Amino acid sequence: MIDPRVASGLRDLPPSVMIPRERMLATFRRTFGAFGFVPIETPHIERMEVLAGKGAGSDEVLRQIFEVTNKGGTPGELALRFDLTVPLARFVAKHVDELGIPFKRYAIGSVFRGERPAKGRFREFVQCDFDTIGTESVLSDAETAQVIHDALSAAGVPDFTITLNNRKILDGMLESLDLAGRSGQVLRSLDKLAKAGRDAVLAELQKPTGDGTPGLTGDQASRVLEFAEGGRGGVEVLREAENALGTRPLAGQGIANLRTVLDLLSAAGVPEDRVSIDLGLARGLDYYTGIVFETTIKGWERFGSVASGGRYDNLASLFTSRRLPGVGASIGLDRLLALMDEAGWLKGMAKGTPVLLANFPGTDPAIPFRMAAELRAAGIGAEVYPEPIQVGKQMGYGSNHGHKIAIIVGPDEAGRQVFNLRNLATRQEDKGLSWSVLVDSVHSVLQALEQERAQS
Amino acid sequence: MIDPRVASGLRDLPPSVMIPRERMLATFRRTFGAFGFVPIETPHIERMEVLAGKGAGSDEVLRQIFEVTNKGGTPGELALRFDLTVPLARFVAKHVDELGIPFKRYAIGSVFRGERPAKGRFREFVQCDFDTIGTESVLSDAETAQVIHDALSAAGVPDFTITLNNRKILDGMLESLDLAGRSGQVLRSLDKLAKAGRDAVLAELQKPTGDGTPGLTGDQASRVLEFAEGGRGGVEVLREAENALGTRPLAGQGIANLRTVLDLLSAAGVPEDRVSIDLGLARGLDYYTGIVFETTIKGWERFGSVASGGRYDNLASLFTSRRLPGVGASIGLDRLLALMDEAGWLKGMAKGTPVLLANFPGTDPAIPFRMAAELRAAGIGAEVYPEPIQVGKQMGYGSNHGHKIAIIVGPDEAGRQVFNLRNLATRQEDKGLSWSVLVDSVHSVLQALEQERAQS
Repeated sequence: MIDPRVASGLRDLPPSVMIPRERMLATFRRTFGAFGFVPIETPHIERMEVLAGKGAGSDEVLRQIFEVTNKGGTPGELALRFDLTVPLARFVAKHVDELGIPFKRYAIGSVFRGERPAKGRFREFVQCDFDTIGTESVLSDAETAQVIHDALSAAGVPDFTITLNNRKILDGMLESLDLAGRSGQVLRSLDKLAKAGRDAVLAELQKPTGDGTPGLTGDQASRVLEFAEGGRGGVEVLREAENALGTRPLAGQGIANLRTVLDLLSAAGVPEDRVSIDLGLARGLDYYTGIVFETTIKGWERFGSVASGGRYDNLASLFTSRRLPGVGASIGLDRLLALMDEAGWLKGMAKGTPVLLANFPGTDPAIPFRMAAELRAAGIGAEVYPEPIQVGKQMGYGSNHGHKIAIIVGPDEAGRQVFNLRNLATRQEDKGLSWSVLVDSVHSVLQALEQERAQS
Repeated sequence: MIDPRVASGLRDLPPSVMIPRERMLATFRRTFGAFGFVPIETPHIERMEVLAGKGAGSDEVLRQIFEVTNKGGTPGELALRFDLTVPLARFVAKHVDELGIPFKRYAIGSVFRGERPAKGRFREFVQCDFDTIGTESVLSDAETAQVIHDALSAAGVPDFTITLNNRKILDGMLESLDLAGRSGQVLRSLDKLAKAGRDAVLAELQKPTGDGTPGLTGDQASRVLEFAEGGRGGVEVLREAENALGTRPLAGQGIANLRTVLDLLSAAGVPEDRVSIDLGLARGLDYYTGIVFETTIKGWERFGSVASGGRYDNLASLFTSRRLPGVGASIGLDRLLALMDEAGWLKGMAKGTPVLLANFPGTDPAIPFRMAAELRAAGIGAEVYPEPIQVGKQMGYGSNHGHKIAIIVGPDEAGRQVFNLRNLATRQEDKGLSWSVLVDSVHSVLQALEQERAQS
């Protein structure tokens, strides 16, 4: 016998995980589509040259790459993608002439990283990315935040905050401290603020980096930290930043960008308290060049960001000389699902087909078979139990699988052309209903159950 | 610069392919769900031991396997799955106790085979499988055909035939010719009937096989062929087979099974002309043990089967001593889409978001931004053009991307709180409509366009 386990760091997803996951993905696809984003798909296997191109992935990610070889293939030539961004860059470079710009695409798919296996860390996970390529318009910046808002709302997340920053504000601030060009160093330290605390960050800011860049002075370090920590809140944060840095052209551009984004989100009806400015938000290190996004769920901040992204100057510089700016974000599907599960927000989601038709011993199975088809034709999911075993066991199957009601036709009912309708939760049974009212009666019972659920 | 090409045998799927593909997958998921099938997902990467287990895949498939290795991993330990059946067997063996039987699952995902690249043959392709595990009920056999019927109908395929056979009938026939146990050999030859013709098959049947099994006699070979060729049609085929073979217990079981399946499908309202018997249908060689299915589209038979499957005695014998019979089928998504595209059946499918909102130079972009949000809240997809370029160019973008209508608010219209509504196909424009009727007017124009399309 072969051991049926999965390889280390990988996992099977059972129906209890997959049903809410598919529902959530359908919601995301609908949301993306409503904004004019269109789906693309690229292969799971890419040429190694594409994945390992300079700057395509961090050194850490490249160390985690899975190589792929088939018989007759050259080792080291192919690998599994580690994100959807590098494939997007390649795709756009290859197809931009036929697609035209702006190009708004979404992509949902598995990516692979040979990380050391740990709780909650998997070597295969799903990314949901959407990006707008080929425009520097602030409308696309605002729209990216709006899509995050609409997607999470539609998915049933009750309360969350989309935090915004713009890399140019920090760059302008660093300019004002004679620290122009040092933003990578500073961002890497600021990124640790929440986890390591302010003292650790202050100390790190003052240390020289590995490549010999000197540390900040004590005064520079505290002013950077003060700036980052002080800049959290609503539009008033931007007013203060303007007073402090408004004359710096870079900072001024960043502030104006966020101001317009707030105005546009408000015009689009995104509630003000769903959006927040944080001038210390360091997301994405050197990759992003303008606005950056991060999204936390209120009360569940410890899960980290569930939707993040930002604007980049040039998506596909590895593959084409054509400059392609863009903005986009990625929704962390698995993290969001894990959080919603723990919060109890997935409960009550209809779990399967609502109706089970008993296969009563001695009754012609063509009867439940026909009834099930009738229910499905009316848009009601219906499953016939495949074997004529003891009816109590069939009812147990229904309860375990989330069926709401069962339709039972014993030989006596078959002769009278009637059925019994059992509520699987309460075990109450309506007896002797005529076959002619099957769809109507199932429909009204299901509606009543749905109303009960909504009110509880 | 790195060449942005994909590796040999792989492909990018642009929006024009992905939009109908996602629609079709949503249709399939809905259909599977309506019958009580639930989704599962297994990793793309499996342990080689699982994939290469005896009988898991044919020798040809095993030669095409992609090995996967990461730094620090052992070469030869991991590989990409080549189908969804072996992972299903592993999954069921591992999880059957918690899931219980019957277990009805569907799975949709990419599989990988290092085939020699050729037109229409790809090294990564999507399979859509559904199976009922843990029951030998004929209801599940019938339901499998019914799911194929409902899925293809819902996907918009106008006319097709689901062809049925039962392996036991052929086995009984071979018994009657003193050829018991020779079905593998016979099926492999019969499988070539459509392509190679009857003379080639007659000759092959009389040749000894590689493992030393002698060939059939000339008389045996012609009787086998006659039986296979003569047995095509409706229920009358079963009556003839019963007369010829009814006393053979195996053949009798197979005939009774198909008869019940026809009765159940008829009870479920599947039109009679959608189902056909073919006693020569050899599908699946040695793997299947009972009913087998194949589905061809009327007028497009040259594309081969788009949905195939059958019943097997023991799914997971490699992984567990528990006997798990089952029945299932796989829909060939990409083949079906290619066929429907060529037949013109995908035309007229709404291609993207229906409404484009112009970003008129000089108009506050918050105006179209707000209008788009209003339309989306009413369930109407709406996209704002991100840059205030020449409006004619924006309209060109809309026409190219399948938008039906454009909403235009120039500075003059903004002052009067009105908009112009342009039909992007006819270029007709309704001018000066009040902002308060935005949703209503867009809704009624879209409805009228949809009716026009349906009538044409």
